[in-house]
Parts: sequence; structure tokens; C-alpha cells
Amino acid sequence: MRLTLIAAQSLDGFITRHDTPGSDFASDADRAFFREALRSFDCCVMGANSYREARATIQKNLMPDRLRVVLTRKPDAFAGDAVSEKLEFADTPPAQLVAGLRQRSFKRCAILGGAQIHSLFLGAGLVDELWLTVEPLLFGKGTPLLAGRTSTKLTLISNQNLAPSTLLLKYRVDK
Amino acid sequence: MRLTLIAAQSLDGFITRHDTPGSDFASDADRAFFREALRSFDCCVMGANSYREARATIQKNLMPDRLRVVLTRKPDAFAGDAVSEKLEFADTPPAQLVAGLRQRSFKRCAILGGAQIHSLFLGAGLVDELWLTVEPLLFGKGTPLLAGRTSTKLTLISNQNLAPSTLLLKYRVDK
Repeated sequence: MRLTLIAAQSLDGFITRHDTPGSDFASDADRAFFREALRSFDCCVMGANSYREARATIQKNLMPDRLRVVLTRKPDAFAGDAVSEKLEFADTPPAQLVAGLRQRSFKRCAILGGAQIHSLFLGAGLVDELWLTVEPLLFGKGTPLLAGRTSTKLTLISNQNLAPSTLLLKYRVDK
Repeated sequence: MRLTLIAAQSLDGFITRHDTPGSDFASDADRAFFREALRSFDCCVMGANSYREARATIQKNLMPDRLRVVLTRKPDAFAGDAVSEKLEFADTPPAQLVAGLRQRSFKRCAILGGAQIHSLFLGAGLVDELWLTVEPLLFGKGTPLLAGRTSTKLTLISNQNLAPSTLLLKYRVDK
């Protein structure tokens, strides 16, 4: 199974504008790209905060061919939302979660944030690629792309415009 | 006079690797670009920390056709280093400094950091362009590109590779 971290950030590396949760700053072009990109993944992982932010949209769009896993310290608190094979809640450590998904024959997993989840999977050496939308914005403050210190080297795979000033940069994570 | 902020950062927006001062993480390609780019500026501004970091190099390379201004709260402390028209120390507010440089007929000024200086000039609405080298690195922690909160919109002017995985992104600051 290949893991791809997908995020949108300001040019200066923030995935939220100041203290405002969510990625409302992202362009229409990024939203369109993100919707389309997700089609090529058969599972995705997000944190509980990201789930809460997008809960209504996610519940409306549950699909038979895509498992969504929400990592949370309290999976029981979300028991009412769970739909087997479509929307699952877990507090499994990343490596173990990925091993389980591999065993269930999932092939492509998208890591969807937030910062804690990014750092958790990157720190465990589980992320193969990073697909980053860079919006033409500077925030100065906000939630950073990563929650913790790292020294990660990347190799640029592709560099394209989603819109005249919005870039989609795809990198391979060097291991 | 046009002002251009020139910096190199990790993909996640840090101009230092963790707590290590300076931009030793920058690639040879960025260094070569930076040296060449500076030739097209007749003045540049940096903060006292950036000056201390690069002092030896700067003093060896003073040029008759490029003024370097170091912004510091204590210009007197650097009196021994000052060379009129080449290396000056000032505690002038940004708008006033820029007005003075315009009056002296300088045409192109590079803002060279660090984060405090970036934010000071950007916050005062004085920066026309941002030339950002994006290295294929993630640090998670370090000195951010900007020291303070902002909501700045940019327009991408150009997007080029300095090396296979190193990008030079040039933006216009929307005003």
C-alpha cells in the first residue's frame, strides 16, 4: 500500500489561516483537484479534529469503494457515526494501522491531516509521497503543516499550476 | 525604488533548520542564484542577526555600487564596521528608511531577512516582490519566514527550477 500525504498550505507553510480551523483559504482550483485526486485512493486517514470539521460532508459522501479511518484517542465516542468498511474510528498506532489496511488489501491510502496526523505518519516513516497545494498567501501564524520537528528530504516529482497562482507540488519522501 | 524580499526556506516555511541559525540548509543552486540575483540590486537591507551571521563574507565583499544597510536598535555598537555608502547601520523605521534610500536615488532594494525584517517591511506595505527559493526539505520547527501574523495575497510571476528538486518562486505582493 502506498501512502500519500495531501494538504493545502499558504506559501509560508500554514494549513490554517491564523486560528481559524479548516482550509477555507484554499482556492476553488485546489478543492476541485482534491475531490478528483481522492478518487484514486481506496482509503484515507484523518484525525478527529479534521473529521469534526468535515463531518457533514463526509457523512453525505460515504462511498462503498473508499474506507475512511479517523484516528482518535476515543473511538468509542464516535461509535454512532461508524459505518463498517466506509467510516471507521481507531486509536491504533500508525504502523499497526497501515499493516492492518495492507492485510485488508487496500492499495492507496491518503493521509489527510491535520498537523498531528501528518507528523505521526511522517515520523513513522510511512509516507511515500507528499502532494502539496501551495496557495499564493502569507499568513505568518496558523497551524503549521507539521506538528513536530523533522529532518525530511524530498525529491520533486512534479510541479504544476492548478490556477495561475496556485501550485501543486508533488514530492517523493526520501527514505 | 522597488523592494524585493529574497529568502530560501524549507517546503514547510522555515528559514532555519530547527534552532540552527543561518541558511546552511540551502542548496548550492540557491547560493549561486542568490549571488547572481544580488548583482541586480543597488542596495539591500538586513537585520543585525543576519549581519552577524554573514559578517566576514559581507566585509570581504563590500562593493562600490551596492549599499548594505543593517537595521539594528543599536547602530552605535557597529560604528567600527561602518563604511559610508557601502555598509551603514541604522535604526530608522522602514518607511523612513525607504524614503531616504529613494532620495539617494537607489532603484532596487533587496530585503534579506531575517524573519523580523521580513515582517517589518511586509507589514509596512513596502515589499513589491517576494523571491522565494523552496528547498525539498521539511523541518517541522525553525525560524518561520515571517515573525508575525499577516494576511497577504500574492500573484505568482514565475516558477522555475534552480535544481531538479529546488524551486525558485517569484511573486508580486498584491496591494
